[in-house]
Amino acid sequence: MSEKIVLTGIKPTGTPHLGNYVGALKPLVDMSQNNRTFMFIADLHALNTMHDPHEIAEHTYEMAASLIAMGLNMENAILFRQSDIVQVYQLATLLNNVTPKGLMNRAHSYKAMVEKNTAAGEDIDAGVNMGLYTYPILMAADILLYNSDIVPVGADQKQHVEFARDIAGYFNHIYGETFKLPEPVISETAGTIPGLDGRKMSKSYDNTIPLFAPEGELKKKIMRIITDSKTPEESKDPDESTIFHLYCHFANTDEIENFRKMFVDGGMGYGTAKTILFEKVNSVLANARTEYERLMSNRGEIDAILADGAKRARVVAEQTFARVRRAMLGE
Amino acid sequence: MSEKIVLTGIKPTGTPHLGNYVGALKPLVDMSQNNRTFMFIADLHALNTMHDPHEIAEHTYEMAASLIAMGLNMENAILFRQSDIVQVYQLATLLNNVTPKGLMNRAHSYKAMVEKNTAAGEDIDAGVNMGLYTYPILMAADILLYNSDIVPVGADQKQHVEFARDIAGYFNHIYGETFKLPEPVISETAGTIPGLDGRKMSKSYDNTIPLFAPEGELKKKIMRIITDSKTPEESKDPDESTIFHLYCHFANTDEIENFRKMFVDGGMGYGTAKTILFEKVNSVLANARTEYERLMSNRGEIDAILADGAKRARVVAEQTFARVRRAMLGE
Repeated sequence: MSEKIVLTGIKPTGTPHLGNYVGALKPLVDMSQNNRTFMFIADLHALNTMHDPHEIAEHTYEMAASLIAMGLNMENAILFRQSDIVQVYQLATLLNNVTPKGLMNRAHSYKAMVEKNTAAGEDIDAGVNMGLYTYPILMAADILLYNSDIVPVGADQKQHVEFARDIAGYFNHIYGETFKLPEPVISETAGTIPGLDGRKMSKSYDNTIPLFAPEGELKKKIMRIITDSKTPEESKDPDESTIFHLYCHFANTDEIENFRKMFVDGGMGYGTAKTILFEKVNSVLANARTEYERLMSNRGEIDAILADGAKRARVVAEQTFARVRRAMLGE
Repeated sequence: MSEKIVLTGIKPTGTPHLGNYVGALKPLVDMSQNNRTFMFIADLHALNTMHDPHEIAEHTYEMAASLIAMGLNMENAILFRQSDIVQVYQLATLLNNVTPKGLMNRAHSYKAMVEKNTAAGEDIDAGVNMGLYTYPILMAADILLYNSDIVPVGADQKQHVEFARDIAGYFNHIYGETFKLPEPVISETAGTIPGLDGRKMSKSYDNTIPLFAPEGELKKKIMRIITDSKTPEESKDPDESTIFHLYCHFANTDEIENFRKMFVDGGMGYGTAKTILFEKVNSVLANARTEYERLMSNRGEIDAILADGAKRARVVAEQTFARVRRAMLGE
């Protein structure tokens, strides 16, 4: 096992779908096999946009159950709710004092809001709440609290890790060496897959295929993938096909080559292609789905796992926060 | 005793001086006689400008010892360190999500920085850290956590209470009635007194008279008050005299009338006036000073009082935070 500590968070903003599986859940489960990983369900980050406590709680269960069902290595991985660690709120509050406001002004998500507002002729801060604006500080607290070495992120998230490094640097400069500087690791697999309509699979496009939908629903969804109107006989371009793209994330190399050939050669209708895709996806997910359903019917078991994770995370969080408190406020 | 809950915080930014005594400490001690008062030493608020942990800790002891020595009613008053209550960090972090950024842009202290920067041709946020910018949110957390009814403030602090009301209102609007709305009560006594040079007594002008300096030092300081060059024989305007102003805060009505007459009639030199002032101040403070010195030599006793205060404050803080957490994140 690598000596490096990996940190990663997942926002409980929706029911996990195949896009989450490919882009986040599977890589995390894989990573947990060989790395000590702090993995939190980022419910505090969700508060910025979600106001229904039951929805946040439900998606938290779903995310946790998905990871566990998919075979998360529970010895290496410390899985917990972000909101269960008091030190993360505490550290975020203290980090405010070493963070220049100018840094927050440069955050991508804030800048996007400012541009949108400016284009619409609104006040630049219209609709911006302090949760959005201070998001990078809470993120830095998450990253720094667990002495993370590595934070795997998508390219669009790289700035968060850079900000955490900057904030750690400001702190260390004023108060002496206190924080380890984390490294961003950009995920190689771009990690987005097409949804039913061919656009990126995303809750906001309403084009998702739920990860652990019952078999019948999974099939129905897959059969609804939008295609062009080529006849079965015609040759088809696999690289233009959502069906083929999705298949690539579940099949092995030989199977993929074979499927590609069937597209190019012609003779396979889209209905057949969808059935082949469904059977592949279903066979890959079937065992995990059974375990997912079992866990979702036993919330107490998920609670116990998250409580145990919080306990283990807290051991490190307490040490880090004690160091920070001592540096800023004395014994 | 009034049923109303009073909330007040004191920043441990310096050794208490006569200005603090008149403007803050004495009114608080008086208030504690008849009101349930949550009184915190605002060490988290100090972090925004002070980077020496020992200095913050030392001034925290001094502020606490001063209040206790002056006769704070320890049954009614709950005296504690702000940083000892984890719920205040937690609540501040959560309140971010209901606070519009536009509200923070209107904060007096931030606007003052923006104006200063603009006048100097700098970036508007030059030298502004997120501790300064989010200060009103931490303040709102302090106020709302203890179900405060009344927050006594100087006129320049009124906005903080208004912001706490606004933020409580936003929260209640989204999540249902959760917070009680506090009322600002503007202190009637303007509460500023002149320092050695006649300007407002303030650490930043280096013109203070320490509250509990040893007798010899107190006398030396008072003898150094700057006066005009009138001879003993000349009539003097008491209302223009720092000596007279200070005397008014320590003497009774008869004594004040008598002293005023001595100024107007002439025949009293400034040296004599200073001696009279010293003797009055010294006699008022002597007992409290003895107790202050005893406490400052017994830090453990102050620690125990602050720990007991934190314990009592936490009972209320835990209940409020549990309500907030339930509203935002469910059980």
